[in-house]
Amino acid sequence: MQTVSKQTLLRMPYYLEHLRDMQKNGETVVSAPVLAQHFKYTEIQVRKDLASVSSVPGKPKIGFKIATLIVDIENVLGYKRLNKAVLVGCGALGSAFLKFKGFSEYGCEIAAGFDANTEKLGSFADVPVLPMEELSEFCKNENIKLGIITVPAIAGQRVCDQLVEAGIKAIWNFAPIHLIVPEGILVQNENMPASLAMLFNHLNSR
Amino acid sequence: MQTVSKQTLLRMPYYLEHLRDMQKNGETVVSAPVLAQHFKYTEIQVRKDLASVSSVPGKPKIGFKIATLIVDIENVLGYKRLNKAVLVGCGALGSAFLKFKGFSEYGCEIAAGFDANTEKLGSFADVPVLPMEELSEFCKNENIKLGIITVPAIAGQRVCDQLVEAGIKAIWNFAPIHLIVPEGILVQNENMPASLAMLFNHLNSR
Repeated sequence: MQTVSKQTLLRMPYYLEHLRDMQKNGETVVSAPVLAQHFKYTEIQVRKDLASVSSVPGKPKIGFKIATLIVDIENVLGYKRLNKAVLVGCGALGSAFLKFKGFSEYGCEIAAGFDANTEKLGSFADVPVLPMEELSEFCKNENIKLGIITVPAIAGQRVCDQLVEAGIKAIWNFAPIHLIVPEGILVQNENMPASLAMLFNHLNSR
Repeated sequence: MQTVSKQTLLRMPYYLEHLRDMQKNGETVVSAPVLAQHFKYTEIQVRKDLASVSSVPGKPKIGFKIATLIVDIENVLGYKRLNKAVLVGCGALGSAFLKFKGFSEYGCEIAAGFDANTEKLGSFADVPVLPMEELSEFCKNENIKLGIITVPAIAGQRVCDQLVEAGIKAIWNFAPIHLIVPEGILVQNENMPASLAMLFNHLNSR
C-alpha cells in the first residue's frame, strides 16, 4: 500500500464521491483545476493529492481518466477489500450501527456485536450479538483486527483493554473518552460531543 | 461565552467525562498533574486548558474543585442549554439518530426530521418527520439554527443549500462530501469513510 499523508487521506473520500458523481453524469476525464475549483482547494493541493494516489500520471491539458482515478482512490482507501470488524456495546448507537449497513460501501462489515447485558444477546439486524466472554476467541478465529466501541464513556477503557487483549490493532472509538492503548494500536476517535460543542460555540458566539 | 481555542474545546468532553467519573467515585478536588498523568498530556497543556475554562483559579498544591470545574466545562461546551436541531435524511443513519436520544446529554435535541421521500413522513421514535417543503417555515417558527445532514452524498449539497436558505447557521454533516457554504456558516464534518480509511491504512501497513 502506498504511503499517503493523513491530510491527503482525509480528503480522498470527498474526491471519490465527486468523481463517482461526475462518472454518473457521463464525464470521463477530469483535470486538477476543475477539482480545485469545485472544492475550493488550491490547484497545487489537488495536484499533490492526485499525484500521491494515482497509478497513471495526469496528461497535460487533459487530466486524469475518471475511471482509473476512482479505482486508484478506492485502493488507497482500502475500500476494495472487505475488512471485518467487531462492535462492542449494542445500546442505542451500537444497534443503530448494526442495522445501518452503509459501512460496507466503505469496505467495513460488522461480523458480530458484543454486549455485557445478557438481554441483548442473540442477533440484531441479522448480525449475531455475543457475550463479552466470547470476544477474544471470536476475533482470533475470524482474524478480526478492527474493533468499534459504542459503549458509554465509563465502560470505554475496560472494553478497549478487552479488544487489545483479543488481538485488535485498530479501534474506532465512539465513546467520548480518551483511550489509553499500547504502542502499535491506532485509535480513531469519533468525538460527537466535541463536534456538538464546536457547533454550539459557533451559534452562541454570533 | 468565553473564547476557547478549537484544540482546547476538543479536549473538554474528555476532561468532563473523567471529572464526572471522579465525582462518582467520591473525589472532590483534582490537580493538573493528576489529569496530565491520566490523559498522558503535559502538565503545561492541562494547566492552560483548565485556565481557559475555569471560573475559579486552581489553588496551589490543592487544585480545582471538581464540582465547579464540571459546571464550568458544561457551560463552555454549551451543554447546559438545550439546542434544538433539524435532521434531514431519515434513511438508515438518520433514523438511527432520531431513535438515539443520547445527543440530549450534550445539549442537542432533534426537534424534527425531514425527508424528500413521502413514505418516510409521519413520525419516527416520537420525532415528527416532515416534508422538505416545510423545512424553512419550521426552522423559522422554532428559531432553529442547527441542521444535521444524513442524506447520501449526492443529495448533500442540495440539502445544505436548503438548510442555509432556512436560516441554519451551523451544520453537522454526515454526508461524505465537501459542502460549499456562505461565510458565517460553520460546517462540522463527521467523515466516517475517512475514519475507516485511516483505520484500514493502519491495518494494511503493518
